[in-house]
Amino acid sequence: MRIVVTNCNTTRAMTDEIVRGARAAAGPGTTVTGLTPAWGPESAEGWLDSHLSAAAVLDTLRTYEGPYDAVVMAGFGEHGREGARELVDVPVVDITEAAAHLACLLGRRYGVVTTLDRSRGQIEDSLRTAGVDRNCAAVVGTGLHVLDVDASLRTEEAFVAAAERACAAGAEVLVLGCAGMTGLRRAVADRLGLPVVDGVAAAVKLAESLVGLGLTTSRAGGYAKPLPKRRSWGAPADDRP
Amino acid sequence: MRIVVTNCNTTRAMTDEIVRGARAAAGPGTTVTGLTPAWGPESAEGWLDSHLSAAAVLDTLRTYEGPYDAVVMAGFGEHGREGARELVDVPVVDITEAAAHLACLLGRRYGVVTTLDRSRGQIEDSLRTAGVDRNCAAVVGTGLHVLDVDASLRTEEAFVAAAERACAAGAEVLVLGCAGMTGLRRAVADRLGLPVVDGVAAAVKLAESLVGLGLTTSRAGGYAKPLPKRRSWGAPADDRP
Amino acid sequence: MRIVVTNCNTTRAMTDEIVRGARAAAGPGTTVTGLTPAWGPESAEGWLDSHLSAAAVLDTLRTYEGPYDAVVMAGFGEHGREGARELVDVPVVDITEAAAHLACLLGRRYGVVTTLDRSRGQIEDSLRTAGVDRNCAAVVGTGLHVLDVDASLRTEEAFVAAAERACAAGAEVLVLGCAGMTGLRRAVADRLGLPVVDGVAAAVKLAESLVGLGLTTSRAGGYAKPLPKRRSWGAPADDRP
Amino acid sequence: MRIVVTNCNTTRAMTDEIVRGARAAAGPGTTVTGLTPAWGPESAEGWLDSHLSAAAVLDTLRTYEGPYDAVVMAGFGEHGREGARELVDVPVVDITEAAAHLACLLGRRYGVVTTLDRSRGQIEDSLRTAGVDRNCAAVVGTGLHVLDVDASLRTEEAFVAAAERACAAGAEVLVLGCAGMTGLRRAVADRLGLPVVDGVAAAVKLAESLVGLGLTTSRAGGYAKPLPKRRSWGAPADDRP
Amino acid sequence: MRIVVTNCNTTRAMTDEIVRGARAAAGPGTTVTGLTPAWGPESAEGWLDSHLSAAAVLDTLRTYEGPYDAVVMAGFGEHGREGARELVDVPVVDITEAAAHLACLLGRRYGVVTTLDRSRGQIEDSLRTAGVDRNCAAVVGTGLHVLDVDASLRTEEAFVAAAERACAAGAEVLVLGCAGMTGLRRAVADRLGLPVVDGVAAAVKLAESLVGLGLTTSRAGGYAKPLPKRRSWGAPADDRP
Amino acid sequence: MRIVVTNCNTTRAMTDEIVRGARAAAGPGTTVTGLTPAWGPESAEGWLDSHLSAAAVLDTLRTYEGPYDAVVMAGFGEHGREGARELVDVPVVDITEAAAHLACLLGRRYGVVTTLDRSRGQIEDSLRTAGVDRNCAAVVGTGLHVLDVDASLRTEEAFVAAAERACAAGAEVLVLGCAGMTGLRRAVADRLGLPVVDGVAAAVKLAESLVGLGLTTSRAGGYAKPLPKRRSWGAPADDRP
Repeated sequence: MRIVVTNCNTTRAMTDEIVRGARAAAGPGTTVTGLTPAWGPESAEGWLDSHLSAAAVLDTLRTYEGPYDAVVMAGFGEHGREGARELVDVPVVDITEAAAHLACLLGRRYGVVTTLDRSRGQIEDSLRTAGVDRNCAAVVGTGLHVLDVDASLRTEEAFVAAAERACAAGAEVLVLGCAGMTGLRRAVADRLGLPVVDGVAAAVKLAESLVGLGLTTSRAGGYAKPLPKRRSWGAPADDRP
Repeated sequence: MRIVVTNCNTTRAMTDEIVRGARAAAGPGTTVTGLTPAWGPESAEGWLDSHLSAAAVLDTLRTYEGPYDAVVMAGFGEHGREGARELVDVPVVDITEAAAHLACLLGRRYGVVTTLDRSRGQIEDSLRTAGVDRNCAAVVGTGLHVLDVDASLRTEEAFVAAAERACAAGAEVLVLGCAGMTGLRRAVADRLGLPVVDGVAAAVKLAESLVGLGLTTSRAGGYAKPLPKRRSWGAPADDRP
Repeated sequence: MRIVVTNCNTTRAMTDEIVRGARAAAGPGTTVTGLTPAWGPESAEGWLDSHLSAAAVLDTLRTYEGPYDAVVMAGFGEHGREGARELVDVPVVDITEAAAHLACLLGRRYGVVTTLDRSRGQIEDSLRTAGVDRNCAAVVGTGLHVLDVDASLRTEEAFVAAAERACAAGAEVLVLGCAGMTGLRRAVADRLGLPVVDGVAAAVKLAESLVGLGLTTSRAGGYAKPLPKRRSWGAPADDRP
Repeated sequence: MRIVVTNCNTTRAMTDEIVRGARAAAGPGTTVTGLTPAWGPESAEGWLDSHLSAAAVLDTLRTYEGPYDAVVMAGFGEHGREGARELVDVPVVDITEAAAHLACLLGRRYGVVTTLDRSRGQIEDSLRTAGVDRNCAAVVGTGLHVLDVDASLRTEEAFVAAAERACAAGAEVLVLGCAGMTGLRRAVADRLGLPVVDGVAAAVKLAESLVGLGLTTSRAGGYAKPLPKRRSWGAPADDRP
Repeated sequence: MRIVVTNCNTTRAMTDEIVRGARAAAGPGTTVTGLTPAWGPESAEGWLDSHLSAAAVLDTLRTYEGPYDAVVMAGFGEHGREGARELVDVPVVDITEAAAHLACLLGRRYGVVTTLDRSRGQIEDSLRTAGVDRNCAAVVGTGLHVLDVDASLRTEEAFVAAAERACAAGAEVLVLGCAGMTGLRRAVADRLGLPVVDGVAAAVKLAESLVGLGLTTSRAGGYAKPLPKRRSWGAPADDRP
Repeated sequence: MRIVVTNCNTTRAMTDEIVRGARAAAGPGTTVTGLTPAWGPESAEGWLDSHLSAAAVLDTLRTYEGPYDAVVMAGFGEHGREGARELVDVPVVDITEAAAHLACLLGRRYGVVTTLDRSRGQIEDSLRTAGVDRNCAAVVGTGLHVLDVDASLRTEEAFVAAAERACAAGAEVLVLGCAGMTGLRRAVADRLGLPVVDGVAAAVKLAESLVGLGLTTSRAGGYAKPLPKRRSWGAPADDRP
């Protein structure tokens, strides 16, 4: 099985980290290919970045020639999920919803620990429109920028502190609310004694599950194929500022 | 990986059918063992049956000596899920929630097609407490009894008719709202041109996913281990009516 | 009028305390009979206990020969309510919902003070499925085990402390979230200056109300009579571990 | 026990009918006194009437010298309930909420059958703010004016037809959505084979329940006593148009 | 364009302050007329006052001979809005909903800062029934009485303190939850660095918008014209206590 | 006051129609400038188009040198609203939310009549995240493509038919769920006898209202200014397929 994982930003080092996480989660017969958008934001932090990222990721998917069996969208709380479902004929799983789906199976309420507080609203909306917000106790920010999340003790401390606030709000399970945090999962889980779900890993398993069962996106209604029409993906070259 | 699948009733033929469906869905390294409660209802159709079934299934799990890596609970809309999460140290996935989780990934709204209308309320409550009811467009009954569901054209017709009502209410994906329907999935999907999710298969994949990622139920809060105390599981023999 | 009150556990002393509370609430022409399940948990604390309790209580009702005019189910947050509505032809009132119904008439928001924190989820779900959760401000645990609730100052202090947390969350009325606390109601009410509702007393009054008005459970839809079929209530004697 | 029942309009014949219904429901030691506002609308049909009625009913209660142990407010879907809770020191039960509370105990979903369609919004809001709307399947109008509801076959037919629409929407229990319909309850119940709840009767039983348990409105928060200040209840006489 | 602004209480000084605020907000071609009810409470603080106020305001509108193009109802959280929509043929905008509508356009969540805590429930209900509560993070009281709100530093401090609690609950925009606070808006906005919406100003702009677009209240369904019938607005003169 | 209106697609004729509608709604001192994205879809019909449109519209705004006092985003149900709020320092009003805000003031429930059924999900989500979905009775499609909506009788008939379905679901007010329909508003309103709200006109009035009151987007929390970072808006020219 061939899974394509799309980073939501243009930072190749982050794609590499995401691919490492995806491969660690993938089953024996699964290959993982990472895609980095050729345009968009270097990191997605806020609505503007998210809207830009969505178009760039869709452009990336649109021009990728495959072949592949499923798409994992690795932007936590970022837009584009539904457009990808229209675009491709294989299952699409977004890491935001994926982490939440698995978290629901592990405890009564889950909490999301993310980077900047400004991303909380997008994550709440993304969980809501995916239909999996009901058992979310809290979305909590660490104050870290996306590109500052690393394997350092400082990152770990920030996540543990934020996780404790999520637990005080009722979370029994934690979700890592950013891609590229796979390395952090074990440390946080050990320190808190709670299950911690990484969205990239969760999305890989859900994508494998759907492909394994021969299931793909419904074409009835919301996710019908895009209509044929004129579309251009970026300004004409001589208009670029 | 060893998955135990618990039937919710005492009908061994139904356990066999469920195990067949589970094995068809399982990955290469997964073994499936079916358990049939030694007591309880011969089929679960309504609240009384569901409450009786829950205790019988928990008794079955409690006295099963394993070893196993995950539990799949194969009663659609039946009680007991949360008690099983307290009882065992491995992940527990109920087919009701499992089907709904996967269905959310495949379309904007899903519909459940079940047996008797009287089961609709239990299914609605089960989806709600699992946190995955938000995108459920409708739960529709076929009027068939649990033990009458088979591979006949009559069953197929009843499912297609009910599915059409679910689609009229907005469903873009269908969930088979009963265990032991694996054989029906393909026929209904073909006739309707929609993805159809079987709960047993979905639960097997989700159980494999959780085990593969080293995740299990949180012990913080709701699903702490049962307290040690006196419990008896059924009336003393000489009190049996 | 003859009301049967079912304890949800096997502890006869608790049945006695519940019956005392029920009789204190009952009107002049009402007689109260307490039933103690012959099997089940000695106290219901958590989901496993609750599922076991539900089957045991239904078995108790099923084999009780009456006659009686209404059933009060005296397990706060425990399962079984809907099954009992299917089973018997008289009104069934659960103390969880009963307390909440009356509390809604006494203030804008109510809070529930219960025993262990682990029971909060069950109580929240029970209020939700009964349709009376909307005005619930909080469900708060005291940390006391069910069998440790008594008339001591320690119990009283624990309830007052938990009640203050419920008030901080917006509660204007309190509900005692455990059966067998009738003695506590007055003390807590006096110390807090708030109405405090005991579920057993509330359920007795609601049962009397329904019987007085000639109303009983609808057989249309959800609570139709159980279908005739083979059911066994506990393992065969020689299978008992 | 002395219950005061306030009609919401100035039509004395309707007060008489309401008092008859209240007395039929009341227990042996209960006396019922009906109050008819000295001003307000002759029937409450719509928001303007409802707002006018609320002030008139509060004026009636304010100037009634009692003594009494509880108030039943007999306007279905009309305003004023919360103001009455502030005003008097005894329990206040509104027939809208009362019928819904009892209906929740009798089936999974209830439906309200009322007079004019224009009243549906008020009833929905009243159930919502009372916290008891969750299990309401539908509020359906008969097209009858309040003062045209009588014991005729025409009225009965209109109620049965509307009730059938409520059942199609999922109602398993019916609520008569108007005061002064007590006579209709039995006929509709017999024809439909469903429990039918009359709000006046329900409110009397709930008022008796609260008084019997020594419970009254919380003064903490929302329903604190009205502050002393200048208030006038109606225009100066020489300003009357 | 001629806008009539109705104060909800009998205090003419407050009408004057409201009219000043309305005129400051009004566009060049708009004239503002303030109406003070001839009866009712001197300030609306709680449900009883609110119900009394609603009838008095409707009586004021009913007997006002105009002409006018829109009505602004200047009682924050007070009743009567829907009745006014039935009564007059021009658009009606209530300051509660108006402030919330504009606040939704300015941030993800808004908070309301009001006078007494006892008014919070009414405001929550008013936002809910207006359909604009979804993004309300909190309704917070300052502890000030309506007639004590002034341009003093004490008032300002109380508002800032309450606003900070609203922000802690997630508010990104503030709503002044009382009429006659126009003078306070600038000071609070400057100190907190947040947009602050005054309901009177907001309602004037929304009324101008509706009139400008030729839109007025729908007569289909909920806000049909009041039926012709006997209504009296206050007790007969010789019955006045 | 200078309002910039952004079309969501690249069809200049549609920008012209939108600008005509905006100017018809604008007050005397308001100038309207229409912007057409240099890239994106020729019409936005579905999620992929919407995500592409959002980035193109943000790019258009980012490179527009103004000056201007407010932005109206004229894509009904399209993405980008929140990103625009981060990007510019003036108020941003989206026609989806604008129409719904005004519709709430005109009736108890509103309905949206849009083009293709496939857009319903986006509109529902857009109303929900704007906080103004509560009173939406239905979103109904006409089956018309965006570029086929015109002043013909065929268009009018399609809208009237869809509107009748919305009314059957409870709508008392209608919203035209597409930009460039201004001409249709009067005809539909006349035929149905209901208020009909055009989003472009509504958004112009709300933008004027915010500017008139000196209000703009909160920078606290969700809509903080975009962080400075590398972003590119479209693929490098030599990568274009």
